[in-house]
Amino acid sequence: MNSIGRLLSLTTFGESHGVAIGGVLDGFPSGVAVDEDFVAAEMARRRPGQSAVTTARQEQDKVEFLSGIFEGRTTGTPIAFIIRNDNTRSGDYDNMRDVYRPSHADYVYDYKYGLRDHRGGGRSSARETAVRVCAGALAKLALKELGITVQAYTSQVGGIKLDKRYVDYDLSLAESNIVRCPDAGKAKEMEELILDVKRQGDTVGGVVTCVVKGAPAGLGEPLYGKLTSSLAHAMLSINAVKGFEYGNGFEAASGRGSEQNDLFYRNGDTIATRTNNSGGIQGGISNGNDIYFRVAFKPVATLLMEQETVTSAGEETKLLAHGRHDPCVVPRAVPVVEAMASLVLLDSYLLDRSRAGLFV
Amino acid sequence: MNSIGRLLSLTTFGESHGVAIGGVLDGFPSGVAVDEDFVAAEMARRRPGQSAVTTARQEQDKVEFLSGIFEGRTTGTPIAFIIRNDNTRSGDYDNMRDVYRPSHADYVYDYKYGLRDHRGGGRSSARETAVRVCAGALAKLALKELGITVQAYTSQVGGIKLDKRYVDYDLSLAESNIVRCPDAGKAKEMEELILDVKRQGDTVGGVVTCVVKGAPAGLGEPLYGKLTSSLAHAMLSINAVKGFEYGNGFEAASGRGSEQNDLFYRNGDTIATRTNNSGGIQGGISNGNDIYFRVAFKPVATLLMEQETVTSAGEETKLLAHGRHDPCVVPRAVPVVEAMASLVLLDSYLLDRSRAGLFV
Amino acid sequence: MNSIGRLLSLTTFGESHGVAIGGVLDGFPSGVAVDEDFVAAEMARRRPGQSAVTTARQEQDKVEFLSGIFEGRTTGTPIAFIIRNDNTRSGDYDNMRDVYRPSHADYVYDYKYGLRDHRGGGRSSARETAVRVCAGALAKLALKELGITVQAYTSQVGGIKLDKRYVDYDLSLAESNIVRCPDAGKAKEMEELILDVKRQGDTVGGVVTCVVKGAPAGLGEPLYGKLTSSLAHAMLSINAVKGFEYGNGFEAASGRGSEQNDLFYRNGDTIATRTNNSGGIQGGISNGNDIYFRVAFKPVATLLMEQETVTSAGEETKLLAHGRHDPCVVPRAVPVVEAMASLVLLDSYLLDRSRAGLFV
Amino acid sequence: MNSIGRLLSLTTFGESHGVAIGGVLDGFPSGVAVDEDFVAAEMARRRPGQSAVTTARQEQDKVEFLSGIFEGRTTGTPIAFIIRNDNTRSGDYDNMRDVYRPSHADYVYDYKYGLRDHRGGGRSSARETAVRVCAGALAKLALKELGITVQAYTSQVGGIKLDKRYVDYDLSLAESNIVRCPDAGKAKEMEELILDVKRQGDTVGGVVTCVVKGAPAGLGEPLYGKLTSSLAHAMLSINAVKGFEYGNGFEAASGRGSEQNDLFYRNGDTIATRTNNSGGIQGGISNGNDIYFRVAFKPVATLLMEQETVTSAGEETKLLAHGRHDPCVVPRAVPVVEAMASLVLLDSYLLDRSRAGLFV
Repeated sequence: MNSIGRLLSLTTFGESHGVAIGGVLDGFPSGVAVDEDFVAAEMARRRPGQSAVTTARQEQDKVEFLSGIFEGRTTGTPIAFIIRNDNTRSGDYDNMRDVYRPSHADYVYDYKYGLRDHRGGGRSSARETAVRVCAGALAKLALKELGITVQAYTSQVGGIKLDKRYVDYDLSLAESNIVRCPDAGKAKEMEELILDVKRQGDTVGGVVTCVVKGAPAGLGEPLYGKLTSSLAHAMLSINAVKGFEYGNGFEAASGRGSEQNDLFYRNGDTIATRTNNSGGIQGGISNGNDIYFRVAFKPVATLLMEQETVTSAGEETKLLAHGRHDPCVVPRAVPVVEAMASLVLLDSYLLDRSRAGLFV
Repeated sequence: MNSIGRLLSLTTFGESHGVAIGGVLDGFPSGVAVDEDFVAAEMARRRPGQSAVTTARQEQDKVEFLSGIFEGRTTGTPIAFIIRNDNTRSGDYDNMRDVYRPSHADYVYDYKYGLRDHRGGGRSSARETAVRVCAGALAKLALKELGITVQAYTSQVGGIKLDKRYVDYDLSLAESNIVRCPDAGKAKEMEELILDVKRQGDTVGGVVTCVVKGAPAGLGEPLYGKLTSSLAHAMLSINAVKGFEYGNGFEAASGRGSEQNDLFYRNGDTIATRTNNSGGIQGGISNGNDIYFRVAFKPVATLLMEQETVTSAGEETKLLAHGRHDPCVVPRAVPVVEAMASLVLLDSYLLDRSRAGLFV
Repeated sequence: MNSIGRLLSLTTFGESHGVAIGGVLDGFPSGVAVDEDFVAAEMARRRPGQSAVTTARQEQDKVEFLSGIFEGRTTGTPIAFIIRNDNTRSGDYDNMRDVYRPSHADYVYDYKYGLRDHRGGGRSSARETAVRVCAGALAKLALKELGITVQAYTSQVGGIKLDKRYVDYDLSLAESNIVRCPDAGKAKEMEELILDVKRQGDTVGGVVTCVVKGAPAGLGEPLYGKLTSSLAHAMLSINAVKGFEYGNGFEAASGRGSEQNDLFYRNGDTIATRTNNSGGIQGGISNGNDIYFRVAFKPVATLLMEQETVTSAGEETKLLAHGRHDPCVVPRAVPVVEAMASLVLLDSYLLDRSRAGLFV
Repeated sequence: MNSIGRLLSLTTFGESHGVAIGGVLDGFPSGVAVDEDFVAAEMARRRPGQSAVTTARQEQDKVEFLSGIFEGRTTGTPIAFIIRNDNTRSGDYDNMRDVYRPSHADYVYDYKYGLRDHRGGGRSSARETAVRVCAGALAKLALKELGITVQAYTSQVGGIKLDKRYVDYDLSLAESNIVRCPDAGKAKEMEELILDVKRQGDTVGGVVTCVVKGAPAGLGEPLYGKLTSSLAHAMLSINAVKGFEYGNGFEAASGRGSEQNDLFYRNGDTIATRTNNSGGIQGGISNGNDIYFRVAFKPVATLLMEQETVTSAGEETKLLAHGRHDPCVVPRAVPVVEAMASLVLLDSYLLDRSRAGLFV
C-alpha cells in the first residue's frame, strides 16, 4: 500500500540507502506547465543540510523526471521521477543491522517481513518524504491555476508554542527563518531550543499548522471520503506524526455548541460564517472558508545518545547511533505537510468535478 | 465514497428519515458464528433514548440481516442488513427545509449536490452510525476468536477530564454508568454537566479513548496503509469528530526523544518495551503492545435555542430547531468508535495474513 | 469483491433463497429523475417466467428503493434497493445440499469458503443479475440525458447465428420476440431450438451482441482502465459468460492491417472513419463511433437430466436436478449485458469528466 | 489508471521515446529470491529485434532495479525498476506529429488529453509491455515456489491455426522456433506468412493461448473479482487485444449442457472432472484443473504502406509511416500474456490466502 489518492494517486518507492527513491503521480490532469525551478525550490525547503537545525547529511535531492511531461507540459500520463541516493554512508548503520532502535520501525519491519534493509532505516526512513514534496510541488502548480494555495508553518517546538491563531500572523514571514515560524521572536526561541537539544544528542517534537486558502465549497465525498478523513489519512502517513486535528480540534471537546457553532450570515452575494471553528469543513465537505489543521510530530526516535534495546536475537544490548539525524523534524516537515495537503486537495477537486452540476 | 476498508469493506446507505438505513459488509471471512444477541446488545449501547443524557428519540434499531449468513454462520458472501426508520417525525424538520443549521452539513450538501433530503439531516445524520455499530459487532465476533478485544470509554465531557491514563482504570466499569466513564466520580460530574447543558438547550463536546488489547505485531501496511492512517481515516469519518491522536499524541510534540522513546528489553521469551508512548504502533505497524488512541468530538451542532443563520435563498433568518437531539454525543459515540476500530483491525489482520510468512 | 466500478460503484448482495437480494449504487450523480416505471419495465425484461423459453419460476422482482432518492430525484447519496425472494422452493434443492452439480459453482464455493448456502445456488445463482438490471436501469436514465443509448440483442443460440452485422438490422425489432433477436426468421428458429432442448431436459448456449450509440470520444482511462478492459471485466462477471470480443474481435486475428485499419476522413466539421472494425474503441479510448461487442454464454449447467457427479464427501453419485431452470439463458441475459455496459459507460463518463478540459 | 491488481499491484509509466519506461510492483511478498538472469531471459523473449519476424528496432531492454530488493531477496517494500530508452529514432515520427495513424491511439489521446507525445506512439506504444514482462518475471518466481507455472504459445497467425487443443502438444517446443508455436510445421507456415506480409509493408493478427498449471482450487473472488474477470481485464489491457475467451469459450455458445458439463468423479483421494471445458474456472473460482484461455490480437495498426488519414487540424492527407514496426505482434506478445496472467494469479493467490481457512 505504497499509494495514496483516488483519482490522483501517488505511488512511492525506494529505500534510504538504495539506488534511488522516487514516485509515480498518476491521474494528473494534462496541460499543466511544469515549472522545474519551483519544484527545485520546494525540494530545497525539505532538503537535509539546509540549516543548523537540521541533519548534516548533504543531499542535493535533484529530481529526474522520467515520463508524463512533453515540451514542458503534463500530458495526462503518469509522471514518474527519481531522486538518486548519493550521499549515503551505510557504514554508519552497521551496528543497527541486528539491533532495533527504540521507537523506530526496525523491529516491526523485521517482524512483519522477516527481513529488512537496515541501512539508513530502509523504507521506513523519512527520506521517502522527498518524493512527497516533489509530487506535492506539481499538485501546487495545478492548484495555483485553480486559485488554491496551501501554506504550513511551525507552530510549536517542544514547549514553545505560538499563542495566536493563524489569522493573526503574516504567514509569508514563516519562510524568513530556519524553523519556519511566522513569529520571529518565537522562531528564535525555537531555534535555540533545537540547537540545545542537538548538543545533548537528544531530539524534540513539535506541531505544524497548515492553512488552505481559496478552496471552493463542495470538496470531500461523504461519508468515508470526507475531506477530513482524507487529510487525516494523509497526515498520519507522514513519519513521526502522532496526531491530527482540524478547526478548533481537541479544544472543541471542552466547549458548548452555542459558543462554537459558526453562524451563517449574508456577505454581499454570498453566504459566509461569522467564525470558522469548523476549519472550513462541515460534514466532511469544504464550505468555502479557509481550511486549517494541525499535525503533531513526536521527537525523532534516533538519538545520538546511548539507549537500552535488544538485538534481533532477543538479547539485551545498548545502542549508540551514528549517522546524521535531525534533532527536530518539524522545520523540514513543513513542506511535507503542504505536499500531502496539496495532493489531497487536488484529488478532492477532481472527484467533485466528476459529478458536480452534471444533472442539477 | 460510502465504503471503507480494503479486504473487509463496509458500504453504508440510508437517510435518517428514509425507508431504512443499512450496510453491506463484504470480505468477511466464512465460518464465524453470528451471535445475534451480542449484535443486539451492541446496538442497544448506541441506541437513542437509552438514558437521560441522550436524545429522547426512541428507536429500537432492530437489525434485519438479509444475506451472508447460513445456519447461523457467515458464508464469506456479503452480509447485508437493514434497520428500518420507525420513529421518524419528519414534521419536526419542516422549518429546516430551506434553512441551514449552523455548523451542520445542510449548506455543504446543498452546495455540492444541488438538492438534499432535509428530513432529520438526511444522509448527514449520525443515525448512520447505527450501521457501523452493527458491522462492528460482527467484526468484534471475529476478533474475539483471534484474541483481540476493543474497548472505548468516555474520557472527557466539556471541561471534565480524566486525569489518569487508561492503564490506571478498570475499564470494565465504563459500562456501569450512562456516560460510559470508568471513573465513577467523574462520571457523575459528566452526567450532571450534560443534564445542565441539556436544560439550557445547548450541547457539549468530549473525548473518547479507545484501547485495543491482544493485537499481534505486524498489522498495518506501510506507507499509506499505516495502521495509524487507517484508524485516523476511520475516526474522522464519524460525525462530529474534530481530532485524532494515538499513543501520547499531541503531548509528544512537547517532549524529548530521550523521555519518550519506548526502550526494548527482554521479557522471558519475547521482546517488550518499558513504556508504550507509541500507543502500540511504530512506523505505522503494530508492535504487539496495547493500541490506544483518542478521538475528539465537538458539541452537537443542532441546538434547541435560537441561532442566526440564512436560508437557501441567502436571506438572513433565525432558526429554532425542534426535533430530538443529543446534548452530548460522546456516551453514544463510545460504541461507534469501537466499531470503526474493530473494522480497521480485522481488515488489517486480513491484509497482513495475505502475505505474512509466505516465503520467509 | 462484490463491488464493481470506480466513481460509480455497484455493490450487490444476497442469496437466491435468502431473505432478499439487493444492491447499493454509490457515486450516482444527483438530480436524475427516477422513472420507476422504466425500472420496472427493465426488470420485467429479465424476470423469470416471462415466456415459454425461460424458467417457469415466477418472481415479480419488485424493487424496493431504500435510500438515495428524494421527491423523485437522485440526491447523490447511495441508492440502495432490495428485491425480496418470494417464490423460493428451497425443497427443490435438498438433494444438492451435499452433491455438487457438474460445471456449477457448488464445488468451488465449498472448497473456498468451507461451507455454502446450497439453496438455489446461493450466492452463485444468476438471480443476482436482477440487481444489476435495476442498477443498470438507473444508469440508463442518466445516460439518456447524456444522449447515450445501450442496446443488446441475441445474435446466436446454439448453432443458429445471425449472419449480418448489427448495422444491417433494425435493432428496435429485437424486443418484438421472446428470444430478443432482431431477425424475425432466425428468432423463430432460435425459439424452436430452445423449446426442443428444454423438452430434452438439456440446455443450450448463445451469444449476445451489444451496441452503444452516442458515446462521446475520450471515454476510457489508459492503460489498465481501458474501456475495453472495463467492459471485459464487467461482462466476464456475468454468470455463464465464457468470452468477450469487441469490434471485429477474434476475426481480427485472421486478417491484415491493410484490410482492417479504420481510415480517417473528413466528414463535414468532424473527423470520421470509413469503417469501424475497432468497435468504437482505439487504444482503449472511445473514438466517437458506435461501440459494439459480443459476449458468449455457455449452456446453463443445471440440467433436468441425470448426471454423474460426487458428493461433498467425495463419493460418486448421480444427480437429477429438480428446481426450475432456464433451458437457455441468453434471452434473459440481454438486459443484463445492457445493464453492465451502462454502468461501465456512466462510470467512464464521470472519470473522463473529472479531468477533461481542466487545464488544456 | 496506470495500475492493475488488488493486493499485488503493478503501476507502470513511461513513453516510448521518453527518458525511460518502468514500473512499481507493490505488495510483492518478502523473501523471494530474485533471479536476475531469469528476469533478463524473460525480457529477451519480448525484446524487439530478436528475430526476422519482429521489428528491427534494437533495444537491450536492460532492467535497472531501484528498490525493494536487499541482498538478493525481496523485502516486501515496493520493487521499482526502469528500462532506459536507448535506441530511439524520434525523427522517424516527425511526420506523425500532426497526423493520426489509422486505428492507432493517436487521435483519441489528442482528443482526451488535448496534447500528446507523438514520438514513437508515446504512452500508447507497446513498448510499455516490457515493464509488464519484468513484473511478470518476478511474479513467476513467486508462483514457481508455489508450484504454479504459466505458459503461453502462438496458436494462430492470420489464417493459419493450430487445430488441436493444448493438451495435444508438447508446450516445451513452443520456444524452439521464432513464432513460439509448439507445432513445428505450423510454425514454419506462420513464419513464412509473417515474412511475406512484412515484405508487403502490411501486418497480420493472431491468437495466443495460455495455460496455467498447478493453480490450487479457490482462486478468484466472487462476484466482481472472479478470476475470469481479472484475467479478461488484464488481457484486454494489452495493446492490440480484441478478444478473450477461457475454456471452450465462444464455442460454448454452440453446444448443449449435456455435452459441455464437466462431470465430477473420484480420482483417488481427490475430486476430479472428466473433461475441462470450464478451463479450470467455475463460478469465477479456480477448481484445481489447468486454467487455459485464448487472447486475440489484431494486426498492428502502423503499416509501412501509404494510408488515407487526417491531420489534427482535420485536413485529409496520406501517411506513410517510417519507423521500425512488427509485422505481427503475436510472437512477442506470448511473454506479455504470460506476464499478465502471472500477476493476476499471484494477486488472486494472496487474496484467497487472506481469509482461507481462518475460521472454518
